[in-house]
Amino acid sequence: MKWLKDDDFIRGKIPMTKFDIRTLTLTMLDIGDEDTFLDVGAGTGSIAIQAAILGAKVYAIEKENQGVELILDNAKKFDVKLNVINGDAAKEIKNIEGFNKCFIGGSGGKLKEIVREVTKGLTQDGFVVGNFIIPDNMVEFKNLLKEAGYEEIEVKLVQVSVMDSLGLMKGQNPVFIVGGRKK
Amino acid sequence: MKWLKDDDFIRGKIPMTKFDIRTLTLTMLDIGDEDTFLDVGAGTGSIAIQAAILGAKVYAIEKENQGVELILDNAKKFDVKLNVINGDAAKEIKNIEGFNKCFIGGSGGKLKEIVREVTKGLTQDGFVVGNFIIPDNMVEFKNLLKEAGYEEIEVKLVQVSVMDSLGLMKGQNPVFIVGGRKK
Amino acid sequence: MKWLKDDDFIRGKIPMTKFDIRTLTLTMLDIGDEDTFLDVGAGTGSIAIQAAILGAKVYAIEKENQGVELILDNAKKFDVKLNVINGDAAKEIKNIEGFNKCFIGGSGGKLKEIVREVTKGLTQDGFVVGNFIIPDNMVEFKNLLKEAGYEEIEVKLVQVSVMDSLGLMKGQNPVFIVGGRKK
Amino acid sequence: MKWLKDDDFIRGKIPMTKFDIRTLTLTMLDIGDEDTFLDVGAGTGSIAIQAAILGAKVYAIEKENQGVELILDNAKKFDVKLNVINGDAAKEIKNIEGFNKCFIGGSGGKLKEIVREVTKGLTQDGFVVGNFIIPDNMVEFKNLLKEAGYEEIEVKLVQVSVMDSLGLMKGQNPVFIVGGRKK
Repeated sequence: MKWLKDDDFIRGKIPMTKFDIRTLTLTMLDIGDEDTFLDVGAGTGSIAIQAAILGAKVYAIEKENQGVELILDNAKKFDVKLNVINGDAAKEIKNIEGFNKCFIGGSGGKLKEIVREVTKGLTQDGFVVGNFIIPDNMVEFKNLLKEAGYEEIEVKLVQVSVMDSLGLMKGQNPVFIVGGRKK
Repeated sequence: MKWLKDDDFIRGKIPMTKFDIRTLTLTMLDIGDEDTFLDVGAGTGSIAIQAAILGAKVYAIEKENQGVELILDNAKKFDVKLNVINGDAAKEIKNIEGFNKCFIGGSGGKLKEIVREVTKGLTQDGFVVGNFIIPDNMVEFKNLLKEAGYEEIEVKLVQVSVMDSLGLMKGQNPVFIVGGRKK
Repeated sequence: MKWLKDDDFIRGKIPMTKFDIRTLTLTMLDIGDEDTFLDVGAGTGSIAIQAAILGAKVYAIEKENQGVELILDNAKKFDVKLNVINGDAAKEIKNIEGFNKCFIGGSGGKLKEIVREVTKGLTQDGFVVGNFIIPDNMVEFKNLLKEAGYEEIEVKLVQVSVMDSLGLMKGQNPVFIVGGRKK
Repeated sequence: MKWLKDDDFIRGKIPMTKFDIRTLTLTMLDIGDEDTFLDVGAGTGSIAIQAAILGAKVYAIEKENQGVELILDNAKKFDVKLNVINGDAAKEIKNIEGFNKCFIGGSGGKLKEIVREVTKGLTQDGFVVGNFIIPDNMVEFKNLLKEAGYEEIEVKLVQVSVMDSLGLMKGQNPVFIVGGRKK
């Protein structure tokens, strides 16, 4: 098995990126074993763990202790190696070198600083993707990428509903997936 | 005010058809003061109450006592008159005469019988609409309408998300709205 | 019949607001015969015509001659009276008095000026609604309403799919419907 | 690069499964280099080609000559090996042995026969996925899987919209992705 289901993960109370959004994010990033991947605001680490399983060298920055513990627990469960940094994303990104793929899952209100630091650190032709449930943040991120000269900018809105055991379609929240390539 | 918001209604624990689906259902039915409207499986009665406010003569059949009470409470609150029948839809429809518009909100597993009885009672050129969150039931209803010779059959899938106070888009369940005209 | 279908309208090449979005817009505005309604950037006039049929006193501003002609043709077809103004919205709004409901369908890149003029002209407790297929414009409009002190701000994302004659669900474009009440 | 974009493929006039649905289908199937994968009704072969790139041994059955040619052209372009069978799916499945993953993209009105043959050929614990834009077919497929004793049945409804160069969100058709594991 390569693509983990939501129930495979050890989960705390932190909301987790769901299977379909995780999958669409990592395939937009086209993560593989030749990549060095940075997950900014890693949360429960489901994206970081999956990226590691796909073979990437992974750095994950997460502010909350609870999140860091979950990432480490999951890394242990799936026997993958990750570099987990417990700290403030905007500050910690500087210390990470040579990443060619980046995911921004959480910005803590500092999207501008984070995009600036990610853009500094990302290798030429590197690709960055963000997930957004707040349209304002999606628009800001898209515009920051444009201003920073990113190309191949993609904005997708994905709505998934899943049939429950009674046969009802249960709607999940719509998510914007936004990506761009650094030039 | 003519179009009630969800919060306007006295609500119990029974799930209520939400504003957008209620509105799209009643405008597909094109309910007005010249109509006699039957609401089958009325639930909290939000559709029936709104139809009455729009001027229709309304019959509402509901099996659960709790639902009947909610409908009557809401009728009182909005000062509209409704004929509420506490009973089994498949049996009670026979006793209602001359309705030209009909909504099927609940079928309690008896969709076939209900469509048969509705089709008997509905006036020529009358219009019937159903709401479905279970695709199987939607397909069954659509096919029952086709078999019974209904025309102008419409099937819509509606997904609504509403921004919450934090600016997040919260997804509601997708709903199928299906209508047809008796010929 | 009160709620017109898309095919009821005389249509040109200008894109028309589709039934479900038209309905959700006019019911969010809660348009009735006691209202004075301004349609800014009326396009084909489907919203303005429907508002007139619902009994409102209607003003429609449209820049393109082709749109103005369509509105007048439709007004004739449905035998309703509308005040159609052929001109630039930002300039023409000033000349319209006493409207308590307003729809912004098109802004021609002048959303800020239009919201400013609409806010000046709209009566106290009046309600304004905009439709957006460009998220950037939706976010700008929502923020303009907030800055201008509007209350009861609602943001909805609506995705409708319609079954075609082969039984396929055909997806329409997602539309943001945004409304607020002037205080 | 592992995950092909839509524009990477040589495309004819046959409709192609789009990136997001292709990705969600292949990750639900969890395709990897240890799999033997059968694509029934392969169409343009975008799913089959991607599966081959992910390392699976691939069989693709396609009725239309035009489809077969596209698959072969794409196989050449991406330098992957596929076993392409030009024929009727219900008949050809019998001749394919030992596949543990299967995708049903087209059924040509023979869904029942195809599910029967696939179920015969699929190895124990094998996984099958179908894509449906016609709800009736989705419901039939889901029920066929249930009747045949499949487990872990999943039904997802996915709606994707993509921002165009003007910033407009363009809605794609909603697609049902249905999967189950043979027990």
